[in-house]
Amino acid sequence: VACRAWDVGLFKAVLAEFLGTGLFLFTGLASIAPWTLASPKLLQASLAFGSSVALMSYCTLPISGGHLNPAVTVSLLVAGKVRQARAGGYIMAQLLGGLTASALLYGLTPEHARGEIGINKLAPGVTLPQAFSIEAIVSFQLVLCVLATSGSRRDPSKGGHLLIGLSVMLGHLVAIRYTGCSMNPARSLGPALIAFEFANHWVFWVGPTTGGLAAAILNDMVLAPTGSGFRQ
Amino acid sequence: VACRAWDVGLFKAVLAEFLGTGLFLFTGLASIAPWTLASPKLLQASLAFGSSVALMSYCTLPISGGHLNPAVTVSLLVAGKVRQARAGGYIMAQLLGGLTASALLYGLTPEHARGEIGINKLAPGVTLPQAFSIEAIVSFQLVLCVLATSGSRRDPSKGGHLLIGLSVMLGHLVAIRYTGCSMNPARSLGPALIAFEFANHWVFWVGPTTGGLAAAILNDMVLAPTGSGFRQ
Amino acid sequence: VACRAWDVGLFKAVLAEFLGTGLFLFTGLASIAPWTLASPKLLQASLAFGSSVALMSYCTLPISGGHLNPAVTVSLLVAGKVRQARAGGYIMAQLLGGLTASALLYGLTPEHARGEIGINKLAPGVTLPQAFSIEAIVSFQLVLCVLATSGSRRDPSKGGHLLIGLSVMLGHLVAIRYTGCSMNPARSLGPALIAFEFANHWVFWVGPTTGGLAAAILNDMVLAPTGSGFRQ
Amino acid sequence: VACRAWDVGLFKAVLAEFLGTGLFLFTGLASIAPWTLASPKLLQASLAFGSSVALMSYCTLPISGGHLNPAVTVSLLVAGKVRQARAGGYIMAQLLGGLTASALLYGLTPEHARGEIGINKLAPGVTLPQAFSIEAIVSFQLVLCVLATSGSRRDPSKGGHLLIGLSVMLGHLVAIRYTGCSMNPARSLGPALIAFEFANHWVFWVGPTTGGLAAAILNDMVLAPTGSGFRQ
Ligand SMILES: [Ca+2]
Ligand SMILES: [Ca+2]
Ligand SMILES: [Ca+2]
Ligand SMILES: [Ca+2]
Repeated sequence: VACRAWDVGLFKAVLAEFLGTGLFLFTGLASIAPWTLASPKLLQASLAFGSSVALMSYCTLPISGGHLNPAVTVSLLVAGKVRQARAGGYIMAQLLGGLTASALLYGLTPEHARGEIGINKLAPGVTLPQAFSIEAIVSFQLVLCVLATSGSRRDPSKGGHLLIGLSVMLGHLVAIRYTGCSMNPARSLGPALIAFEFANHWVFWVGPTTGGLAAAILNDMVLAPTGSGFRQ
Repeated sequence: VACRAWDVGLFKAVLAEFLGTGLFLFTGLASIAPWTLASPKLLQASLAFGSSVALMSYCTLPISGGHLNPAVTVSLLVAGKVRQARAGGYIMAQLLGGLTASALLYGLTPEHARGEIGINKLAPGVTLPQAFSIEAIVSFQLVLCVLATSGSRRDPSKGGHLLIGLSVMLGHLVAIRYTGCSMNPARSLGPALIAFEFANHWVFWVGPTTGGLAAAILNDMVLAPTGSGFRQ
Repeated sequence: VACRAWDVGLFKAVLAEFLGTGLFLFTGLASIAPWTLASPKLLQASLAFGSSVALMSYCTLPISGGHLNPAVTVSLLVAGKVRQARAGGYIMAQLLGGLTASALLYGLTPEHARGEIGINKLAPGVTLPQAFSIEAIVSFQLVLCVLATSGSRRDPSKGGHLLIGLSVMLGHLVAIRYTGCSMNPARSLGPALIAFEFANHWVFWVGPTTGGLAAAILNDMVLAPTGSGFRQ
Repeated sequence: VACRAWDVGLFKAVLAEFLGTGLFLFTGLASIAPWTLASPKLLQASLAFGSSVALMSYCTLPISGGHLNPAVTVSLLVAGKVRQARAGGYIMAQLLGGLTASALLYGLTPEHARGEIGINKLAPGVTLPQAFSIEAIVSFQLVLCVLATSGSRRDPSKGGHLLIGLSVMLGHLVAIRYTGCSMNPARSLGPALIAFEFANHWVFWVGPTTGGLAAAILNDMVLAPTGSGFRQ
């Protein structure tokens, strides 16, 4: 019976990751659909991705832990904060969520306004090592924030979801002009599949994951305040 | 006597919904009055609608529960969180609040700056099913957030009002370029009545309500963490 | 001795109101000094006035209660939340703070960038009754928020200062295009004195005060949740 | 052994200041790298510097106290809130962090987009005393906020990091058009060294430090609520 309850819990959690990632990426990507009205897109996209991850992180927190990002799930797996089977289910759900969001957005946006439906690609003059590094750095700060809030995220009054939202907003303020800002393989896979364009696509898997893992390892080895003698 | 106290409470609550919805929509709509100075309207409108709903939700929370939106009231009615008579009073007050806000704004804005006083309509190339879906999706995420915070919204230090504000801001960042963003029949009715223009007006009633109801049902059937076996 | 301690406390509080209002208005007004680089001024000014009032409200809260605005002090006087002598000292300090901020900004800004140093005036086509009403409405919502947070503002974790900041930001998003947005006689007096231009200046005293008093009276008579029978 | 634990703690704290300042300044400076796409830079830079300092302040708080700025460390040293040896280590780490961030950003940004990699300099028409005063004033309000939150910053639910973020955002909204906004010698040193341009560079050391020290002294002598007789 306990086992059965866990199955239901896991099913709900995987469903929450699917729905949460889907809504997060639908709203984020929709904010950058390139209508003729060319408004200050960079700020708009940063606020949309930041607020949507804060909201979906809040809503899915008690159900799945609110990962919403394969790079986050892999980092938490290495940090020992999630089990392998669950991590696998989450990543599938996140990728499917991102794909559903992109397909839905494609169907709901008039042709003249679709542009490249938010595909991530290197800006003119940006090299592959530069793109990899930028993606790794913004994902490094994201996973650092995820780990810093992980102790208090179950209690929404601690504001962990707002911190994650700020971190994703910051990543977009920085990286949009370099790579369009991925930080999240599920965010990059959907548009790439819909547009069927995979040039340099691997950067948006390896960059975020490398940055996230570096943060997890640094946090575990050095920063985590176990036995810290700090006193101001 | 208890009955009489309840009547006074209900009267105050209905008054709070009228005033709260009125102030929320006056300030939101005023932010998009189309002055010659064509500034980044989309960000401004998103911040104005988001912050005003956060503020009015905070102020009316202890008095009426801070619905401020017929789609929210109907969803909470179906979720069993408000009674039918009260819901009816709230919806009347919200619609009247939106109408008063629009009339006031009409009177307070110079003719050259009035434009279409913020009427919701489909952007060029957007079909009715697309408009319906966009309105349903942004309202789905709004009611999901309302339900996720409903346990802690009575305590303002939990920040539930800020989450609702972020959710309304996100809806506007996404939907303004598709439909002008309604999410709320009371927001659409006022300008439509003042301008006496009702083309496709029903979309702004059916879209938000359908999205809100879907969120209420999903929350009740699947996501609500009763008996959830989640463990990270 | 108790009397003496009170004097020291009152002196510190008045000093805090002077410094707080001065810093609040210096930073707010500086954000709209009209440099050649014509960026999205309206958003910038709204964020600057909103964040500076949140910060100074936080810093002066334990010392003076964080009024920073004669219209707020008068409303709290009528609401019975501050004594007459203290209110008089606060208002003097606030006006002096605003004047100092304007003079300092005048001295610190190159001549070509000074413009009209942020003076409030009616936009083209806006009538006096319209300006009065807009100022009264945005000040009404401000004092409503001040009163709604007054129970919890002493505890910074309740976030009352953030709500006040959002409320001032919203007022600017709405009213800048009508009147430049005053909401606060101390904000209007400084620039008017430095530029020695007093056309329609009285609107920025009577509008905010009328709106604030209406909120105080409404709150006292109807909304305040004493004996409310609300139950959701 | 206690001594050894302290050494490890100090090492971690210094490392945290290096990493935190580095990430803070990399993301802040990257947000203003002047790509051809000339978007509303001032808002973007203000949001990026504000959010990154909030995030890094949150992450390094339990390890080092989250200074991230030599002007803050010097002010806290004078206020008696940090010891001399620790302060020395922190300042070295902060300067090194800023230098690393600038070098990294130089390497990761295509040549055509580098511009002056965010070097601080006086805007046309701004005199040295004006630049000094503007830097001192925005740093004054920053250190005032740091000291006002210092009692509660160890508990993240108090939101001290958000207040510091708002304060840095406000400083940028105000000072970018005068000096590019330093508020922080570590923010100014990195770009100056990489570009090897030191015209008026001393202003970005003396201005922020003077403003910070003035806030520390004022707070200690007048505002600190010891024995305050305030009662609203
Ligand atoms: Ca993006
Ligand atoms: Ca709208
Ligand atoms: Ca203004
Ligand atoms: Ca800057």
